[in-house]
Amino acid sequence: MNHSELFENIVKKHSFLCVGLDSEIEKIPSFLLKEKDPVFEFNKRIVDATHKYTVAYKPNVAFYECYGAKGWKSLDSTVRYIRENYPDQFLIADAKRADIGNTSKMYAKAFFENMPFDAITVAPYMGEDSVIPFLQFKDKWVILLALTSNKGADDFQYHDEDGIKLYGRVLSVSQKWGTTDNIMYVVGATRAEMLKEIRRIVPDHFLLVPGVGAQGGSLTEVVCYGMNSKCGLLVNSSRAIIFADNSENFDKVAGEKAKEMQLEMEKHLSERNLL
Amino acid sequence: MNHSELFENIVKKHSFLCVGLDSEIEKIPSFLLKEKDPVFEFNKRIVDATHKYTVAYKPNVAFYECYGAKGWKSLDSTVRYIRENYPDQFLIADAKRADIGNTSKMYAKAFFENMPFDAITVAPYMGEDSVIPFLQFKDKWVILLALTSNKGADDFQYHDEDGIKLYGRVLSVSQKWGTTDNIMYVVGATRAEMLKEIRRIVPDHFLLVPGVGAQGGSLTEVVCYGMNSKCGLLVNSSRAIIFADNSENFDKVAGEKAKEMQLEMEKHLSERNLL
Repeated sequence: MNHSELFENIVKKHSFLCVGLDSEIEKIPSFLLKEKDPVFEFNKRIVDATHKYTVAYKPNVAFYECYGAKGWKSLDSTVRYIRENYPDQFLIADAKRADIGNTSKMYAKAFFENMPFDAITVAPYMGEDSVIPFLQFKDKWVILLALTSNKGADDFQYHDEDGIKLYGRVLSVSQKWGTTDNIMYVVGATRAEMLKEIRRIVPDHFLLVPGVGAQGGSLTEVVCYGMNSKCGLLVNSSRAIIFADNSENFDKVAGEKAKEMQLEMEKHLSERNLL
Repeated sequence: MNHSELFENIVKKHSFLCVGLDSEIEKIPSFLLKEKDPVFEFNKRIVDATHKYTVAYKPNVAFYECYGAKGWKSLDSTVRYIRENYPDQFLIADAKRADIGNTSKMYAKAFFENMPFDAITVAPYMGEDSVIPFLQFKDKWVILLALTSNKGADDFQYHDEDGIKLYGRVLSVSQKWGTTDNIMYVVGATRAEMLKEIRRIVPDHFLLVPGVGAQGGSLTEVVCYGMNSKCGLLVNSSRAIIFADNSENFDKVAGEKAKEMQLEMEKHLSERNLL
């Protein structure tokens, strides 16, 4: 999927919602625990109930990896299920990987060859040769951490050389490694006021924005400072949607929550004349 | 295992060698492919042949993850095999993880609870709250990326605020998050000349030094600038040992290569009166 196709999906669905599948087994409704693969069953029902309102899903790999080989199977089943049943969804592995070149290549194989993800989140600390291997897969995307939503973002991401902060350097240097068709950036919704400056450096790239909802970020602010003429935003919500309810109707409630966000997004897209 | 126990092992074994298990299935001897789990079989034989000369093993998680659930099983079997048969070996998950707090906690569970690793490599970009969850496991270590061995280290790690480079800031800020008993740092052997400055910031911490061998770093230089009164070094070699030979005798040859390095290390330890 390229930049234009992603925008077309956004226009078609009236939504730039990404649902984060942080599917912690301790938090899923207990009646699912009798299933053979409770996490997959949970994801399947969440996706079936929300897909009308979303353009992307983002499994958080840690929540699968912590169950070893079994968790890895739940992840694999989830991604394949979405790919087969809802082929227009953009699939993001939230994995925050990166290592020396020959190792990053193996991570890229894990998510792009052995599983049908469209994109992977990547940590920038090790620089160009740790990121390039992910960009060598056709139609696949790197989503590079720029300014993250957590408190610890303050520790290093604002490190300032002659007025250029580290996250700004990450944005400007890494742009040259790929194109707007294969690189996006993570910018936390809790840092919405920074989006104005970020848009000066990367006016055209898509931004993946986590932190709306449970982490406290505001959708209106994100749109105000971050939206561009091709939308340019994928806004992620995880816990506020997938764990909105814990009863047998959890999927229905998740669908309602997703619809609420989609309707808000539709309003913003419409106000910007993008529909 | 704490700082003193690690040093005791180094003195006992006359070695500060860590063998990297970057066990790519395409590179292991072809006669092993008939085994049920060829990667585990390869690792088992490498470990049996080299353990006398090593104090640590470092499986590179990407090389397992790229085979999905199956690869994850090989990793699990490998770590359990080493823990059961050679309990004094320090086991490092080279995973370069880190995410927001609740997610890092899941990664910590994956490697410290579900598998018996002693340490995990962690990327510092997201700051304190992305690292702390790993430090909340008793007797477990974080090995934080400081200055890496690859070319891309130049892109961001030298970003300079008032004479303090990013890697220097990572070292000085992160020291406060733990102690010399639960934090070490990755410093690439290809940057050996920088070790002098690094030792001024972290005189007492252990450093994990990759890049000796295939990546071109020199052991003598690493020792010259990096060794302290408790050794303070774990030097990793991967490909130069595990893929030294491709015949039925691959393990014997790997053992010889490991012994060569151990003897060099013994010389250095002895010259510094640490034995």
